[in-house]
Amino acid sequence: MQRPNPTAERAGFAWPIRVYYEDTDAGGVVYHASYLRFLERARTEWLRSCGFDQDVLRREAGVIFAVRSAKLEFLRPARLDEALCVELRIAARRGASLLFDQTVQRSGQLLCRAEVLVVCLDSESLRPRPIPMPLAAAIAPD
Amino acid sequence: MQRPNPTAERAGFAWPIRVYYEDTDAGGVVYHASYLRFLERARTEWLRSCGFDQDVLRREAGVIFAVRSAKLEFLRPARLDEALCVELRIAARRGASLLFDQTVQRSGQLLCRAEVLVVCLDSESLRPRPIPMPLAAAIAPD
Amino acid sequence: MQRPNPTAERAGFAWPIRVYYEDTDAGGVVYHASYLRFLERARTEWLRSCGFDQDVLRREAGVIFAVRSAKLEFLRPARLDEALCVELRIAARRGASLLFDQTVQRSGQLLCRAEVLVVCLDSESLRPRPIPMPLAAAIAPD
Amino acid sequence: MQRPNPTAERAGFAWPIRVYYEDTDAGGVVYHASYLRFLERARTEWLRSCGFDQDVLRREAGVIFAVRSAKLEFLRPARLDEALCVELRIAARRGASLLFDQTVQRSGQLLCRAEVLVVCLDSESLRPRPIPMPLAAAIAPD
Repeated sequence: MQRPNPTAERAGFAWPIRVYYEDTDAGGVVYHASYLRFLERARTEWLRSCGFDQDVLRREAGVIFAVRSAKLEFLRPARLDEALCVELRIAARRGASLLFDQTVQRSGQLLCRAEVLVVCLDSESLRPRPIPMPLAAAIAPD
Repeated sequence: MQRPNPTAERAGFAWPIRVYYEDTDAGGVVYHASYLRFLERARTEWLRSCGFDQDVLRREAGVIFAVRSAKLEFLRPARLDEALCVELRIAARRGASLLFDQTVQRSGQLLCRAEVLVVCLDSESLRPRPIPMPLAAAIAPD
Repeated sequence: MQRPNPTAERAGFAWPIRVYYEDTDAGGVVYHASYLRFLERARTEWLRSCGFDQDVLRREAGVIFAVRSAKLEFLRPARLDEALCVELRIAARRGASLLFDQTVQRSGQLLCRAEVLVVCLDSESLRPRPIPMPLAAAIAPD
Repeated sequence: MQRPNPTAERAGFAWPIRVYYEDTDAGGVVYHASYLRFLERARTEWLRSCGFDQDVLRREAGVIFAVRSAKLEFLRPARLDEALCVELRIAARRGASLLFDQTVQRSGQLLCRAEVLVVCLDSESLRPRPIPMPLAAAIAPD
């Protein structure tokens, strides 16, 4: 398991999500797999806020990020039309992986808590590769 | 088929969409069914911009909106990380239905064109019901 | 628009679909975009029944099939746990495209009717390409 | 955490899954959230094989099953057109919850391992409720 690396920690990042019909199920609430989509949108937008698009990383650096593991706790249901907020912080960074602590909240109330381990892979071989330097530096600049 | 009702026409409404992995498929482009989700997000946000949440309409007015038919043309592919724009205008309004002309564009280039007929239904019986008055008035105020 | 080509017509093909939570929405019924997924599963399995996997076609013949247009009519709702049946027949075949007539039924009752135009594309350039010969022959053997 | 209850253990259950375009992403592999859908299909079909439909349970017993937590490990990618197999066994059973051990395999090769805690909820209040008796008995008949 990853050990927290204090130098990799950064202030949190928050991304708003609106719940549409596409996200819900016949139970009247947000379908549980939709949270994985919400969590990834926030990671993608965090990466973009650091200056990196996943598509550019793939084309220019030849790397993609893949979810290696995820622990999800579903604490309260979300419903149609609600405005949610996905937050993330980096809990640990290694040479070829990032561990994210993420939450989904509604008006400050915790709905879902997640720990997501993302690995950096060569886009052709799908084997682990070090996070490319400019990005690694942007994540933990010291 | 619906006949255009000039009094129901309004200036267009535009809603931004970002393409995430969840929206794409192994062909490397946006999966064709994802466009139906994008189109619905824009209709939902247009309704919200008129002052109406679908969830409130269901709980308070007892109506839901359902897609009765859709004609879709997929003209050019969209790709991961692209910023798209969904536009809509009301092509026709009847007592219990709305016909939307919608497009999905990228930097002004047309990717998808759609004609979507939405009907107003009783949320319990799922039978057609007139669009509730305050909403009907908001859509075509004269 | 495609003109029906009698020689391309074949007996119908049917594929069973079970409705899971993932397919439904908070309206308590199958989400409208889910039908596009159901329709594609049937086309894929029909192609497989003709002896062709899409993944093999892409790797060996360098072609992919893309939906160029779709007309969908949603006539009755489907619900969680229901057993549906997707049927298809080829309404027209041209050099680089196939027009499918498809239905989704439940116990013989029509829920959704669709006309889907699929084009054969070069997997690299995404430009139209003739349907490769062994497949074209399998679709219309005379 | 749940402790294994030997009397609740049963022989495994297996459910086949075919990978379609809808399940994949632009990385060329199955999208990680799709595994949650595959895992749920297997749980639903296992329940059906025990004689219980979720929709009937909701209408007649007033209960629904909700995912309370999930631990997922993504070990190897799956690709378009592949035939997968989802297996499950019950790792623990309590009054109002079931802990599932699940795997997704391809030709005996492990792709994804999951531990999914499902709770039984009142379908109206969404509060925990004991698993209804006939079902509880069917799961652990002694």
